[in-house]
Amino acid sequence: MIRVGIVGGTGYTALELIKILLRHPDVCITKLTSRDESCPALSEVHPQIRERLELNFSLFEIDSFAEQVDFAFCCLPHAASAEIVKQLVERGIKVVDFSADYRLNDTATFEKWYEVEHPDAARVGTVPYGIPELFRSEIKNAELVANPGCFPSSALLPLAPLLSQNLIESTPVIIDSKTGVSGAGRKPNLKFHYPECNESVAAYGVGTHRHMPEINQIIDRICNQKISATFTPHLIPMDRGILSTIYVKPKPGVDASELHNQLDDFYHDETFVRITDTLPNTKDVTHTNFCDISISQCGELTVIVSVLDNLIKGASGAAVQNFNLMLGLPETTGIL
Amino acid sequence: MIRVGIVGGTGYTALELIKILLRHPDVCITKLTSRDESCPALSEVHPQIRERLELNFSLFEIDSFAEQVDFAFCCLPHAASAEIVKQLVERGIKVVDFSADYRLNDTATFEKWYEVEHPDAARVGTVPYGIPELFRSEIKNAELVANPGCFPSSALLPLAPLLSQNLIESTPVIIDSKTGVSGAGRKPNLKFHYPECNESVAAYGVGTHRHMPEINQIIDRICNQKISATFTPHLIPMDRGILSTIYVKPKPGVDASELHNQLDDFYHDETFVRITDTLPNTKDVTHTNFCDISISQCGELTVIVSVLDNLIKGASGAAVQNFNLMLGLPETTGIL
Amino acid sequence: MIRVGIVGGTGYTALELIKILLRHPDVCITKLTSRDESCPALSEVHPQIRERLELNFSLFEIDSFAEQVDFAFCCLPHAASAEIVKQLVERGIKVVDFSADYRLNDTATFEKWYEVEHPDAARVGTVPYGIPELFRSEIKNAELVANPGCFPSSALLPLAPLLSQNLIESTPVIIDSKTGVSGAGRKPNLKFHYPECNESVAAYGVGTHRHMPEINQIIDRICNQKISATFTPHLIPMDRGILSTIYVKPKPGVDASELHNQLDDFYHDETFVRITDTLPNTKDVTHTNFCDISISQCGELTVIVSVLDNLIKGASGAAVQNFNLMLGLPETTGIL
Amino acid sequence: MIRVGIVGGTGYTALELIKILLRHPDVCITKLTSRDESCPALSEVHPQIRERLELNFSLFEIDSFAEQVDFAFCCLPHAASAEIVKQLVERGIKVVDFSADYRLNDTATFEKWYEVEHPDAARVGTVPYGIPELFRSEIKNAELVANPGCFPSSALLPLAPLLSQNLIESTPVIIDSKTGVSGAGRKPNLKFHYPECNESVAAYGVGTHRHMPEINQIIDRICNQKISATFTPHLIPMDRGILSTIYVKPKPGVDASELHNQLDDFYHDETFVRITDTLPNTKDVTHTNFCDISISQCGELTVIVSVLDNLIKGASGAAVQNFNLMLGLPETTGIL
Repeated sequence: MIRVGIVGGTGYTALELIKILLRHPDVCITKLTSRDESCPALSEVHPQIRERLELNFSLFEIDSFAEQVDFAFCCLPHAASAEIVKQLVERGIKVVDFSADYRLNDTATFEKWYEVEHPDAARVGTVPYGIPELFRSEIKNAELVANPGCFPSSALLPLAPLLSQNLIESTPVIIDSKTGVSGAGRKPNLKFHYPECNESVAAYGVGTHRHMPEINQIIDRICNQKISATFTPHLIPMDRGILSTIYVKPKPGVDASELHNQLDDFYHDETFVRITDTLPNTKDVTHTNFCDISISQCGELTVIVSVLDNLIKGASGAAVQNFNLMLGLPETTGIL
Repeated sequence: MIRVGIVGGTGYTALELIKILLRHPDVCITKLTSRDESCPALSEVHPQIRERLELNFSLFEIDSFAEQVDFAFCCLPHAASAEIVKQLVERGIKVVDFSADYRLNDTATFEKWYEVEHPDAARVGTVPYGIPELFRSEIKNAELVANPGCFPSSALLPLAPLLSQNLIESTPVIIDSKTGVSGAGRKPNLKFHYPECNESVAAYGVGTHRHMPEINQIIDRICNQKISATFTPHLIPMDRGILSTIYVKPKPGVDASELHNQLDDFYHDETFVRITDTLPNTKDVTHTNFCDISISQCGELTVIVSVLDNLIKGASGAAVQNFNLMLGLPETTGIL
Repeated sequence: MIRVGIVGGTGYTALELIKILLRHPDVCITKLTSRDESCPALSEVHPQIRERLELNFSLFEIDSFAEQVDFAFCCLPHAASAEIVKQLVERGIKVVDFSADYRLNDTATFEKWYEVEHPDAARVGTVPYGIPELFRSEIKNAELVANPGCFPSSALLPLAPLLSQNLIESTPVIIDSKTGVSGAGRKPNLKFHYPECNESVAAYGVGTHRHMPEINQIIDRICNQKISATFTPHLIPMDRGILSTIYVKPKPGVDASELHNQLDDFYHDETFVRITDTLPNTKDVTHTNFCDISISQCGELTVIVSVLDNLIKGASGAAVQNFNLMLGLPETTGIL
Repeated sequence: MIRVGIVGGTGYTALELIKILLRHPDVCITKLTSRDESCPALSEVHPQIRERLELNFSLFEIDSFAEQVDFAFCCLPHAASAEIVKQLVERGIKVVDFSADYRLNDTATFEKWYEVEHPDAARVGTVPYGIPELFRSEIKNAELVANPGCFPSSALLPLAPLLSQNLIESTPVIIDSKTGVSGAGRKPNLKFHYPECNESVAAYGVGTHRHMPEINQIIDRICNQKISATFTPHLIPMDRGILSTIYVKPKPGVDASELHNQLDDFYHDETFVRITDTLPNTKDVTHTNFCDISISQCGELTVIVSVLDNLIKGASGAAVQNFNLMLGLPETTGIL
């Protein structure tokens, strides 16, 4: 049994992670930390797993943590995460980091977009980006993996193969994303107060969302191509699920059906990416680790629709997929 | 034109009140106060009425308020409200108070349930309870009216006539209420964070909700009968609307159809109470000032279902109905 | 009092229309028709207006209708509508038609997209398109007005002034729209069955939605410009509201702030269009006749966000605005 | 591997069943039937399990079915189910039946409430009722189990131990239940059309719901007590989950805390029933096989709140729990 610790275990992604790990045959959760000094009871924070895990929250303390844990998932906010991750890696603990700290190619971009000094700058740019379908070989050999952002996952899965095979133009790339409210985290805020966001849709962060540079840089890493995606997220009155509608222009002589076939080929042996003939709903994939993708023509443009569960394929499911790879376990263990 | 001021104008009931008053032909809103020292712009707090009212929030100050206002609606929390209301009444301003401060029969009950000293104890027990269908004559002559609680409105409208006509037993009276989340107010709180209460139902305040003594006391006031209602509110994933399912036992020889006819007679000339032959949905009354009521038999018990919009008939619509009565205007002005 | 008849009164737009007209001081609803031979009771079909209108549904019959009605709103599906509208116009009854029958510029386009022969081809292309802010003078003098589609309203209000003033390029114009489910009408269908579309988002009709040619043709009519908009509607789990995210490219030397100012000028004297400094939510406008529009820059592209209530400004509110204009009444009567 | 067949596989309970069985290590799904002559593709009917099960729907035909199947789950409507079930049992196939056909104690009650002749009257009254926590020993030895109704499960789990231990009075027993819309099945109907039931609550079937005699009869079977529960179901705007608020009167000298302790003892060794100290939300149990129960005092009455997922513990999870018992497998296999 692999002894697993979760750093920052009170949020929604941590709950999904715990639920997945409770089903994973090779895992034993031995440590749960929280930054809340009151160390609340697990059944109070996550009543859904009441009586399923005999463990309570403790404050993070590297020595006791390192003693009880072989593998760590770190679910802290940016900057706070790298502070802990560097200690864990130095102790030889393998880590999947949920934060944005190790996703970008360089510290300068990180510090510009996140407006904070990076606590572990030396590692930035050396850590595999945790989309297994795109970076499997690097992930297999890594001590630390940067779990991807939920919006970038939904955009990169369809875009990366098409751009790297030179099938679509690098401009315009317009990503119009719709997300459930769990994507905003668990901290109360007027914007996510039920009567404010129920029965309503809104765009937010137009031109300023931090997942935009992440998408651009990962495309650069995979395809050696500069793109400048236009990314607009929208808040949808539902718990979970992301749908990204992506507008691209095929290269001359290429049409939607060729794009469809190429993606279908590319993902042929992948369990968790399904290229569909009909327009997918987020409900087809919520509570699963799947990403479904469709491709349609609309005049000169191609409209790609990609759906995934922001908490699973966009966070905790992908994290366990990476965990399986890093430990040489069958990739689908616990997430099918 | 009646110059109207609203004390505590940033919440949901205040917004509904403003929207109703903007349609009221005899009203001019001249003052809006907030306890927020930053005095936020109206269009920021309530974007829905952007460009419709040239007024911003100010802090409450009795002299300037009294100068500009003929009639006040006070939408402050309990205790804070009576502090202001007593000043307003002393200046000769008529008031509808949305808080619980003047609803109960005596200060002792208030202080027991609200756990705070009453700032205006002398007036407690002398103020009409603002359900026009039950207390119209007192309201007409009042300087101050206590606007009723939303749950009590839904329960008292059917119960009061049946109890006072001696058609049902005084025990058991079980009120199982379901409310939309706007009933919880606008202050962010983990309980009302979208992903917590969406796709979920929960009971709350079982045996401890402050609307329970309110229901019991008003029944006592109307019928001179002691009842001890069992009241259980539930939070429903919707913006607005209350449905109360009320279980009572008809007196020997009385059946549901007689109760139906009696209620139908009692409310025959009332515009805003409709006795229906089919089970009502909250959607039949949301965004209106109506309360719809049905009566069914189920074995020995009678099941009464009553629906209203917690923000309108359960708050701001009733308040304007009271306002119209207090000023001798046609009762339905602005709320049909 | 103007005697108003509603043809096809059982759907959601008809209910909103009735509710608005019940508040309109110059209107008396004298006729309601349905194609349902059973002529159901009004309170059964629309329990929300129970006891508010003493009228029941009847089958449409031109003679009795013409006798009792001065002005008609026709809420029938396409093709069925023009069959009736032509009879009404011939009898001298003014009409606002909610269907698509008279919106397009030519019969050929209608027949291609709607796959049915047009029952009143002669009038096609001569009927004003009912967006008052863009076609006020034609509407004022019309006997018949084609009420616009809900998506086109949300797209044309921002696009028409910008294109006609030559401030943006005519390509790309990408309209990514999100709509509440009431937009799909009231006929039960697995797609709109609650557990299918709740907690889910989906795109639909990519490249094939009938509002796409409507947008393109009206732009042509206003600006004498050919555009070929890419239009993708999405179904959102909420009752009502449309948000359109529109991606355009400003002309060289033009930026988002200039576009903002130009729109602000253009709509300066319009009550129902508000240019906002912050990103609007659909909730800012639902249950109102307003359309709120914001403009942001994102790299080379400008992102316009436009919100309206599909049943009000996107249907019945606009219809009454047209009605007011056609009869010389103050334009905002009944819809503020 | 046990070869499992599902009869009637297109609905919501069947989908949940398939998803559970795909995780069950001892099961291979070999047959899926539908009454739809067009035999639709599985990925069309249930896109969520696209690429996960290589099987399509076929019409039910006893010979081929019996050849390929060791164990059957029958998800057909009442009466249609017993027609098939009797054939299966005669062929020696073990069955869990989701319908109401074998739940009641006698054919007369069945025929009164379901208004149809029972196709397999001989077996009625001999089939174990599939709540494992209450009927485990009968279920273990059964060839056929009647899977319980979702509302009865939520009511019987708390009521049965309290009544059989003589801790509460047999009258009043008031069950006020709230259910998500998936409980209504997958057939489109105006009542469950999204814009009708979204943002609304309604009671339905007051005094006439078929789960009322089921509750009464099972109590009689367990405790040899006649009760006459008042049962009122309500439709809640959410996908799944049932919350039952149950009002009972403790026997003299008994209080809520004793009831709590007794239930806690009774369910001490049960994995899937959790007695909680705080009021449970349906969200604590949706997507799980748990039933959480709390007990509160309110005046003379005790208020029991019980929550479960109508599709899992209220249907397919319970069914697999029964399946595990019938085959001597560990009871929690596949459902934890």
